[in-house]
Parts: sequence; C-alpha cells; structure tokens
Amino acid sequence: MSRIDAQLAFLNEADKLKTVLRGTTLCDGSRRENSGEHSWHIALYAMVMAEHAVRPVNIDRVIKMLLIHDIVEIDAGDNPIHGDHDPADQDRIEQAAAARIFGLLPDDQAAAFRLLWDEFEAAETDDAIFAKSIDRVQPVIANLESGGGTWPEYKVTAAQLQARVGVKVEKGAPAIWSALKTRIDAWFAKHAPHHD
Amino acid sequence: MSRIDAQLAFLNEADKLKTVLRGTTLCDGSRRENSGEHSWHIALYAMVMAEHAVRPVNIDRVIKMLLIHDIVEIDAGDNPIHGDHDPADQDRIEQAAAARIFGLLPDDQAAAFRLLWDEFEAAETDDAIFAKSIDRVQPVIANLESGGGTWPEYKVTAAQLQARVGVKVEKGAPAIWSALKTRIDAWFAKHAPHHD
Repeated sequence: MSRIDAQLAFLNEADKLKTVLRGTTLCDGSRRENSGEHSWHIALYAMVMAEHAVRPVNIDRVIKMLLIHDIVEIDAGDNPIHGDHDPADQDRIEQAAAARIFGLLPDDQAAAFRLLWDEFEAAETDDAIFAKSIDRVQPVIANLESGGGTWPEYKVTAAQLQARVGVKVEKGAPAIWSALKTRIDAWFAKHAPHHD
Repeated sequence: MSRIDAQLAFLNEADKLKTVLRGTTLCDGSRRENSGEHSWHIALYAMVMAEHAVRPVNIDRVIKMLLIHDIVEIDAGDNPIHGDHDPADQDRIEQAAAARIFGLLPDDQAAAFRLLWDEFEAAETDDAIFAKSIDRVQPVIANLESGGGTWPEYKVTAAQLQARVGVKVEKGAPAIWSALKTRIDAWFAKHAPHHD
C-alpha cells in the first residue's frame, strides 16, 4: 500500500468520529454533540485560551493532541464523565483502539500519533495537563449555556462537578475555572440546593 | 468585559458552526456533514498530509488557519462549490461576518485571527495554498467513499470537477490529486459517460 493510501485509510476511518455521540449537547441544547465537532471546538478553545495555561505550553502540540485525543472513541465509544463505566475495562478497550486506528497510518506517523495520544492520556506534561483542562471545561460551558444541559439527567451535584471536573481544569487552567465559578455556583444553588 | 469573558463569547458563538450544514455527506452517506466537524477533519488531514505540500509549509499555521476558515459561515452559510451563488454577494456577506465574529475576541486576538483568515481567503502564501488544497480535497474523498455523494445531485461533470476542484488541489498538493485521479476517473466513466 502506498503512503498516501495508508494516510487516506486513516483519515476515512477518522470520519466515523462524527457519528460518536457525547453526553453533552450543543450550546443551544438542540442535539447531542458528536466527538468530531467537539474535537474541533476544543482545538479552537486551546488556540484562543493558550495564555491561561498555568505553565507555558507549546500550543501547536496541544492543538495536535486535541485533534487526535478522541479518535479511540470510534471503537470505544464516549464515556460521559458523570457516567458509571468501569475505568479498567475502558482503558483496555481504548488501548486496543489506539493500536488499531493509529496503526492504519504509515509506521512513522503511527508511532508519532500514538506517542502524542499516550502523552495526553498520561496527563503529566504541561502540554497534556493544559489539553486535559480544555477538554474538561468545554462541556461545562455547553451545560451552562444550555441551562444545565445534561447535569440533571446525570444527577450531578456541585461537589461531584468540582471533584470530577473542577480539580482537573484548575490543574491546567485555573483562571478559566475561576471565571466560570460564579455561574456554576449560581446554577447549582438554584437547581440542586438539597442534592449532595 | 474581562478578557476571558470576550474569549468565551467568541467560543460560544463558534459553537453555532456545528449547525451549518454542508453540501457533502459523511463518508458513510448517512447525513450531511456540518462545518464544525468538517473543520476538525481537515485540520487532521493537514496534520497527516503535510509532507505532500508542493512547497514547504508551516503546518502549525496551516492547522490554525483551517480551524477558523469556516467560522464566517455562521452568518454567511455554506456555499457548495458546485452551487450557483453570486461570488460578489458572498464575499460582502463573509467580510461582514468576519468583522462581527472575530470582533467578539479581545482586540489583539481579533486582529490576529482576522489576518489569518484573510491570508486563507487570499490563497497566495504557501500555507494558504496548501490549506485550500486540503479544504477542497476532503469533500471529493467523502463523495468517492459514499459512492458519488452529492455529484449526481449537483449534476457535476468530470470536467467541472477538474476545473473547480482539481486545479486548486493540484496547486497545493498535486500528489494527493494524482493518488485520487484513478478513482475519480472510474466513477465518472461509470456514472456520467455522456454528460459534458
């Protein structure tokens, strides 16, 4: 197989990410968001919000990381952060998905893409920590914009949101979480005062 | 308004790109593609296909260009390349859209994003020429994958495809067009032999 044919096989497989539906809706609440358009939106988020990274990042690497971060969902599906999937199962399925899907690329690119995805998943480098913050914060904003979004469906409490999302956003982009805190607190004060 | 508030206003407005439908379908033909997921896919295309640029490009700039290239469609809509819109009208509407939407950002970012979009539109620099090639070639591949896609609907001939799309892809990424030519010729030979 020629190099271009292998690259096209990967890009055509990636097309399927547009059919993976996420827990979150669009900002207007009209429908569930898919993981393809989500990946675009958070790459744009990173481009706009780079200055708020808690430590300096290589924003070009962050953007590339975000473009590929969800591709494993083609095989593994999206697991909403407030859902009840088994993390060990999920990890095994995603590792196999990464091997299969990145493996469609020519060997050198397969290795490079896999390294970048592994780095994102490990969330240890400054680039990956910031990328994870951005990935976590966009659904919160979609929920706020759509009047609570999927929080009622998943019966999310303010404490759960802080533990599952807030802590991770604060680790990479504290200024963004701080800017949202007033709106988040107001929503939970109004909608779930006795829940927790 | 704080800097983060202005950035979030832009990012929330950008969310609407997920509701702008394009002429092309997904590779599986199941539904029309939207401009948000299209923007993700072609940024990924650029990341994978950078080596096929006819002249060396700064791929990080190309990716950023592609992430924002369609944002004006929030106001202007998508105009399929094989459609019959008036280019002068379209240009006026898109210029106003760029002023409004990029204008939501803090001034320094509004200016930088606008410059990048202007560069893409002008299609004169090596980065913009390659970005345009990638933007043009992805719908062709979606059409090939979905058995002709929207070509029959728009009554596209092989000569029209070459003039409207092939010439532009060849300008920035001739190797990609060349790799597709056999499949394109085979489709038109089978489906539209006497049309043109």
